[in-house]
Amino acid sequence: MISSDKVNGTAVYSRSGEHVGTIDHLTIDKATGKVAYAVMGFGGFLGIGEDHHPIPWAKLSYDTSRGGYVTDITSEQLEGAPERRDDWHRDRDWEARTHDYYGVPNYWV
Amino acid sequence: MISSDKVNGTAVYSRSGEHVGTIDHLTIDKATGKVAYAVMGFGGFLGIGEDHHPIPWAKLSYDTSRGGYVTDITSEQLEGAPERRDDWHRDRDWEARTHDYYGVPNYWV
Repeated sequence: MISSDKVNGTAVYSRSGEHVGTIDHLTIDKATGKVAYAVMGFGGFLGIGEDHHPIPWAKLSYDTSRGGYVTDITSEQLEGAPERRDDWHRDRDWEARTHDYYGVPNYWV
Repeated sequence: MISSDKVNGTAVYSRSGEHVGTIDHLTIDKATGKVAYAVMGFGGFLGIGEDHHPIPWAKLSYDTSRGGYVTDITSEQLEGAPERRDDWHRDRDWEARTHDYYGVPNYWV
């Protein structure tokens, strides 16, 4: 079991152990009670110019030895991900394309 | 979609509109990615003597007009709930009895 107050600010690593970003917050689907996305911060300096991207929760796994999450998402994948609008969290079409793009099942089925 | 950073500290009301408590944090089941419990604070004063209780997530619904959650759990129900140990979040037997007690489906099925 994960505590929501221990998730925000948690580091995310690549498979090779490189620090790639930090979890800013999770979004939870009201209908299913499932975690849908980890909104992650990548790069930036002191929060200036930091990019936030929603990553399907299924793309993250917890690594107890590192005390953080591991993902196999690459920066190239991230740059090529479906573009989103401000209302991406209500855009089922974008959601479907994003889950398809990352090769993980939709959280809502 | 709910943002995890907007949940902690959110008020919980009874059906009749009485303020009954506050959400401290959520716990998320790693295996299913589902929110399992809202750990709620009830009563207390300035945090002294405040009781925290895990409430099955299915017992809460969001009320946009109030800007908080609503539950039909009563204080009598809360007092009569199955007793828990410190490792309640790993105690599937306690979890099953608790969901049964509150009359909601187990989150893990």
